[in-house]
Amino acid sequence: MSEITRLLIHGASGRMGQALLRLAAERQDLRVVAAYSRSQPAQRVIDGVPHFAVSELNGAPEFDVAIDFSLPDGFDPVLALCAQRGKALVSGTTGLSSAQNTAINDAAARIAVVWAANYSLGVAVLTELVRRAAAALPGWDCDVIEAHHTRKLDAPSGTALHLGAAAAIGRGDEPHYASLRAGDIVGEHTVQFAAAGERLELIHRASNRDIFARGALEAALRVAHQAPGRYGLAELMFPNL
Amino acid sequence: MSEITRLLIHGASGRMGQALLRLAAERQDLRVVAAYSRSQPAQRVIDGVPHFAVSELNGAPEFDVAIDFSLPDGFDPVLALCAQRGKALVSGTTGLSSAQNTAINDAAARIAVVWAANYSLGVAVLTELVRRAAAALPGWDCDVIEAHHTRKLDAPSGTALHLGAAAAIGRGDEPHYASLRAGDIVGEHTVQFAAAGERLELIHRASNRDIFARGALEAALRVAHQAPGRYGLAELMFPNL
Amino acid sequence: MSEITRLLIHGASGRMGQALLRLAAERQDLRVVAAYSRSQPAQRVIDGVPHFAVSELNGAPEFDVAIDFSLPDGFDPVLALCAQRGKALVSGTTGLSSAQNTAINDAAARIAVVWAANYSLGVAVLTELVRRAAAALPGWDCDVIEAHHTRKLDAPSGTALHLGAAAAIGRGDEPHYASLRAGDIVGEHTVQFAAAGERLELIHRASNRDIFARGALEAALRVAHQAPGRYGLAELMFPNL
Amino acid sequence: MSEITRLLIHGASGRMGQALLRLAAERQDLRVVAAYSRSQPAQRVIDGVPHFAVSELNGAPEFDVAIDFSLPDGFDPVLALCAQRGKALVSGTTGLSSAQNTAINDAAARIAVVWAANYSLGVAVLTELVRRAAAALPGWDCDVIEAHHTRKLDAPSGTALHLGAAAAIGRGDEPHYASLRAGDIVGEHTVQFAAAGERLELIHRASNRDIFARGALEAALRVAHQAPGRYGLAELMFPNL
Repeated sequence: MSEITRLLIHGASGRMGQALLRLAAERQDLRVVAAYSRSQPAQRVIDGVPHFAVSELNGAPEFDVAIDFSLPDGFDPVLALCAQRGKALVSGTTGLSSAQNTAINDAAARIAVVWAANYSLGVAVLTELVRRAAAALPGWDCDVIEAHHTRKLDAPSGTALHLGAAAAIGRGDEPHYASLRAGDIVGEHTVQFAAAGERLELIHRASNRDIFARGALEAALRVAHQAPGRYGLAELMFPNL
Repeated sequence: MSEITRLLIHGASGRMGQALLRLAAERQDLRVVAAYSRSQPAQRVIDGVPHFAVSELNGAPEFDVAIDFSLPDGFDPVLALCAQRGKALVSGTTGLSSAQNTAINDAAARIAVVWAANYSLGVAVLTELVRRAAAALPGWDCDVIEAHHTRKLDAPSGTALHLGAAAAIGRGDEPHYASLRAGDIVGEHTVQFAAAGERLELIHRASNRDIFARGALEAALRVAHQAPGRYGLAELMFPNL
Repeated sequence: MSEITRLLIHGASGRMGQALLRLAAERQDLRVVAAYSRSQPAQRVIDGVPHFAVSELNGAPEFDVAIDFSLPDGFDPVLALCAQRGKALVSGTTGLSSAQNTAINDAAARIAVVWAANYSLGVAVLTELVRRAAAALPGWDCDVIEAHHTRKLDAPSGTALHLGAAAAIGRGDEPHYASLRAGDIVGEHTVQFAAAGERLELIHRASNRDIFARGALEAALRVAHQAPGRYGLAELMFPNL
Repeated sequence: MSEITRLLIHGASGRMGQALLRLAAERQDLRVVAAYSRSQPAQRVIDGVPHFAVSELNGAPEFDVAIDFSLPDGFDPVLALCAQRGKALVSGTTGLSSAQNTAINDAAARIAVVWAANYSLGVAVLTELVRRAAAALPGWDCDVIEAHHTRKLDAPSGTALHLGAAAAIGRGDEPHYASLRAGDIVGEHTVQFAAAGERLELIHRASNRDIFARGALEAALRVAHQAPGRYGLAELMFPNL
């Protein structure tokens, strides 16, 4: 592996793909060596980064780690490429089938893979804090409250359910959920633990979507050096948390 | 040790002592066998609990653990009693001298001792969460905000400083502090970690002072079974946190 | 009217009635001249206050204002008494029928009456702030979030619905509601207004139920001097808000 | 006045000026007819908007209202131009001298002028809510807490002081202030009123700086139709609040 981590971006034309390209361009410790979009790109090289159609994935140049934010029907080829080349994969593609999930686990025998629905480092830390607090306070009431912009249709958010699952580990009960849809809120998640006379509120507030791309880039730098296996984001980024 | 933990209360006439007596009376798993106050009690037995002056401490009946919420000048005799009897001690007496602190450490070679400024279990969990979050997020800005009733004169609160010290472990910098004094707020502590585009807010809200007495009773039940040593509240109550 | 306002308490044995008696005893500007409970009181005079059964209401001594926190089936006699004597009434009895509501309006031609579901002065101010903010920000999304102890069964709380109604005045849309039931939370209400890039959160936190009794006593002092009419709490207490 | 309000932008090269130009271009109800920057612009026309140096201000084309976000030493000419042409002025230039403040008041005899340190409509509403709540709750403790990004040097923020001044009207006491500097927080202001057993927290959260430019554009549309006078933002935008 070169000293500068070489990235392959899969799903380059999406909102996350564009943010990844923009933020990667500002960094010295990594370089995007290829960006793949569903349709043939209008320009072959944009800001020094070679762009390709996903149909050209098999001819990808050498890379250290791939970052994938695409759609379920485009996921299999990038996983196959990473497995074949023996390179790590960071994926945030949602809606994968259980067969695709099994394929990730199979590939994890040979390569390091991290998959997460939310690449915010703050949410990764929060998830781990929630898991620990919930285990320490088994008799306390637990509620998960999330707020997002009005264009978000699903509720509770995937991240809220993920936090709720972390809270439920080692307890007999599920937390309750409440969802707000208001303004252009990027994303806020509160996990509240309440007992007689006291409360803990653990809150994450995202104010800029760039945190998700930034977290994915950090995950790519980290996972490129890991032994094969399937990693959670918190486990990968904060092994001692 | 009997199946019912036998408590000795030292500082029984204070606000915490009164709360300890009231809450202990509601429980089946512990029994107050002696309550000591600075001055000779008007009644020898109150609600079934024998009351004594601290001058009578040496003749204390058999007990499993002592709980002390008194003043620095009354602390030495109860520590000596516990050390002599080989019984555990739970203390929340503030303002101890460094000599008294050393005496606790010396006694901890023979008995289990827990000392904490705040016996809220929620604050104990929060302290541990703060320590972990701060270590995981070294570049994030850290602020500690606390709010208390207007009669509280010291600022920041001892608990805020304790949380700030937990945040400072493994980081090069100290957090900033902000204090509010308003209404009759029992006690609220927020530790905020902020980076570009995201924030974590970890908040504890106390609404009833009974949580401090309840936490001290739980600590007494737990420490009565521990090997000699000096324990922090979080470490004692949440060893796997 | 004497310089000290003379109170008649109706519903004296309930939680609010007991708080009213306890808080009234601490004040110099009012005096409870009669306390009425559903059943015959065990003692005729308690702490200097004459106690009666509601069946004796017609023989009530002279008073300036009655405070009623009872049940719907006990409400009519106290309204009738006030109307007959020409004295003001403060009521917090919930679940009144529409006929009883009409009876209040009829009585208001002769006496001053205030009815409210929540006598917290902070909630009264919040309601008025919400009404004004909602009218000023017609295009902003509005959400009402409330949190109460786990024994509260109805959701959203009556106060949340009252705040939501205040927000809906002069707008085409209803706010959304979210309810949490956790620990022993006395009552928290948040009204959030959100637009692109900014948010207002207007929050009331109750930490002690005495605020409801205190607000009712203040309302009694105020309404005793008012012209006949039906008053809302905010209107009565904060006419210039 | 034409049906489309014609804007003159003074201070076009600053952060606010750029945001004003960008947001104005998206609207049908106003048109920027001239943009003035300190130095000679590189291009005479950018996106259809004529650009000039401030030295050319006297030859400005016809306009309905000027928006000024410049520096104190550039303020006098734009005020003079508006006064001479009889056109309204919206200014957010901070650090004006008392002589300049007097000049605004003098000009207000002939033209409508609005000056504010913060053009967020949410803050304008909050200021008015704070004024009303403070007057209604004279005995409650009042605190103003603000949080901003770490590059902000002054503390408390100008907006916090403005809110504090609104709270102090009609009370004998000043509120207390607390300031946090963390991450890239755009701006958060909390005004808390606390009494025994209850609290009101009135919070504004800005998540995007565009709200300031958007508020200034709205103010320009509104003030263009006003009678001469000096207006506060809340008074101008929410006359019935």
